[in-house]
Amino acid sequence: MSKKVAMILSGCGVYDGSEIHETVLTMLRLSQQGAQVQCFAPDKPQMHVINHLTGEEADETRNVLVESARIARGAAKDVRELKAADFDAVILPGGFGAAKNLSDFAVKGADCTVDPDVLAAIGEFRDAKKPIGLMCIAPALSARIFGEGVTCTIGNDEGTAEALEAMGAKHQVCTVDNIVFDAGNCLVTTPAYMLAQSIAEAATGINALVDKVLELA
Amino acid sequence: MSKKVAMILSGCGVYDGSEIHETVLTMLRLSQQGAQVQCFAPDKPQMHVINHLTGEEADETRNVLVESARIARGAAKDVRELKAADFDAVILPGGFGAAKNLSDFAVKGADCTVDPDVLAAIGEFRDAKKPIGLMCIAPALSARIFGEGVTCTIGNDEGTAEALEAMGAKHQVCTVDNIVFDAGNCLVTTPAYMLAQSIAEAATGINALVDKVLELA
Repeated sequence: MSKKVAMILSGCGVYDGSEIHETVLTMLRLSQQGAQVQCFAPDKPQMHVINHLTGEEADETRNVLVESARIARGAAKDVRELKAADFDAVILPGGFGAAKNLSDFAVKGADCTVDPDVLAAIGEFRDAKKPIGLMCIAPALSARIFGEGVTCTIGNDEGTAEALEAMGAKHQVCTVDNIVFDAGNCLVTTPAYMLAQSIAEAATGINALVDKVLELA
Repeated sequence: MSKKVAMILSGCGVYDGSEIHETVLTMLRLSQQGAQVQCFAPDKPQMHVINHLTGEEADETRNVLVESARIARGAAKDVRELKAADFDAVILPGGFGAAKNLSDFAVKGADCTVDPDVLAAIGEFRDAKKPIGLMCIAPALSARIFGEGVTCTIGNDEGTAEALEAMGAKHQVCTVDNIVFDAGNCLVTTPAYMLAQSIAEAATGINALVDKVLELA
């Protein structure tokens, strides 16, 4: 029986959605290890749309689920349909979408809240002690998911690490090719593009995260 | 000296732009092999915008270069800036964008024309005998680039193969994990998602294409 892994996406593009390389690298490793993947995303407007060529905000609106479906080749579902009982694990790639659409960490920092539908879905995995993988900036959600004392990494950025600690998480410095594993919470985190200087570098830590999540699943 | 490879993208998403997995898998293999990548795309409106969740056409316009920049994490340039003298090879991923934005093959089939700026850029690589890699549906451009007698593959789809032969190309059936190499034209093609049933399968042929292109570069 192949393992079934849910991924929660936040759009399509590093500046306003899911980081595309992280998402595809995760899908690749899961596929190479024989796991099945189903993508989910919130069915709501993005916080905003960024022109990725100029970095400027564009005067348009896009839907998180509709844009996430681009990376999933059409096969994305509303995150409200995600039930932990149907899956062995859940993984969230990074990209600013995790801090803009799945939460408001990009705006509110340590005072952030997580999208209620996303929190409900991930909470089922937490309560079932099923493995959860968070990469790049997505570990900023850790304290909101698990409460105080959860251990995670976003690499070595001091400002971001301080915000995570202000929420009650314990931050561990981690290199791009490594993971931080909180065994009590069945949580695996890795810095990915918080540190990666190339897509090959990003793949090293993402592969380690996927392998650990599948080992636990 | 690391090899420098140009990629020509056609947007961001399988139904109206570059196939995202193919693009990222190509970037990954190039990075793992130590090559440098620079992405280019035409600075013009997409043929149309497809809602990837429903498959329906959306009532909006998007720019090919601006959307391509999403996959390139911002680092994309106008294809008119692409000069073969600055690179060792060029690779085009597939996705409907290759048949809608880089050419009009999706609409006109064997009567298609290639975007003049794209054709000019690729023509420089052809004239310099520098390796060209085309995957998925992008080999539909082969006869327009090289003229009659060029050998390539789009997998085993009979209708598409007939259109390629009507343009003067010689089509070779090819499995997803393999490549077709036209030595006289220094052209490498592979079916990718014309045949792949999973991202891991797509990676097998794409890795073979990248390795052959780098061997020739």
